[in-house]
Amino acid sequence: MENPKLDPWFITGLVEGEGCFNISFSLRKKLKVGIETRPSFSISLNRRDLDLIRKVHDFFGCGAVRYSRSDRTYKFESRSVTDLMEKIIPHFKKYSLCGSKANDFCRFAEICSSVSANRHLNKRFLSEIIESAYEMNPSGKRKHEKRDLLRKLDELKV
Amino acid sequence: MENPKLDPWFITGLVEGEGCFNISFSLRKKLKVGIETRPSFSISLNRRDLDLIRKVHDFFGCGAVRYSRSDRTYKFESRSVTDLMEKIIPHFKKYSLCGSKANDFCRFAEICSSVSANRHLNKRFLSEIIESAYEMNPSGKRKHEKRDLLRKLDELKV
Repeated sequence: MENPKLDPWFITGLVEGEGCFNISFSLRKKLKVGIETRPSFSISLNRRDLDLIRKVHDFFGCGAVRYSRSDRTYKFESRSVTDLMEKIIPHFKKYSLCGSKANDFCRFAEICSSVSANRHLNKRFLSEIIESAYEMNPSGKRKHEKRDLLRKLDELKV
Repeated sequence: MENPKLDPWFITGLVEGEGCFNISFSLRKKLKVGIETRPSFSISLNRRDLDLIRKVHDFFGCGAVRYSRSDRTYKFESRSVTDLMEKIIPHFKKYSLCGSKANDFCRFAEICSSVSANRHLNKRFLSEIIESAYEMNPSGKRKHEKRDLLRKLDELKV
């Protein structure tokens, strides 16, 4: 075959090294809780692996491929909570990660489930989500300090 | 199971991102051709994935795990040409890489086969090996320039 489908375990192995489960937070005055919760799953590869990243896109059947200027990679990225819940997370529940990324995934799946149930719009649950998210990807960069987000929540009257 | 064996496709996926097939060259006056050819296969992971790297070591049943100070990672590495020929290369022939690393692997397998047949001790074959090796890992660092190695070979009287 010219273009065989990727094996599901191959995907998990690739993600163990190059994948990222991330929860980012943005300040949003329009929201009651003042903070938007955005889960995303991505795999970043070099230019010379653009074909592979497209195969990953085909494999999951969701998300998009884009060029990331910040780190000069091509990214497959899925941000839709529905797709994360229905396509991405079930894959990793069946074909489990086994390195340290398994911990990130476990927190990610829990947070997506909370977001899917709209618990991130509740002050108490959101502070739990923030606490858990900041235990993920210890080497990653963050736009906001955890304590600043939690202080914002504390100041809320709701 | 507490510690299930890794799936072979998982290994291939992990290597697609984090593995390295490398041929390095060292100047050795004692050798007739003046240049030593050293193939190696390695997977480098962060400290927090030391357990996983040990599982990779168990999976292949050869090589060793060591700390690499230069990039602060833990490496599984196999340098024995016999192990490369009998354990590492057969794995990737059965569970194929599919990104750009497949090209590196293809050159690597050919060069190991040449080294195994002692063709690297012959000036003409060695220059072919050097040419092919320098097409691998385009972003990697090299101790010697290709033209310097080829000039060394040209100067040989044998």
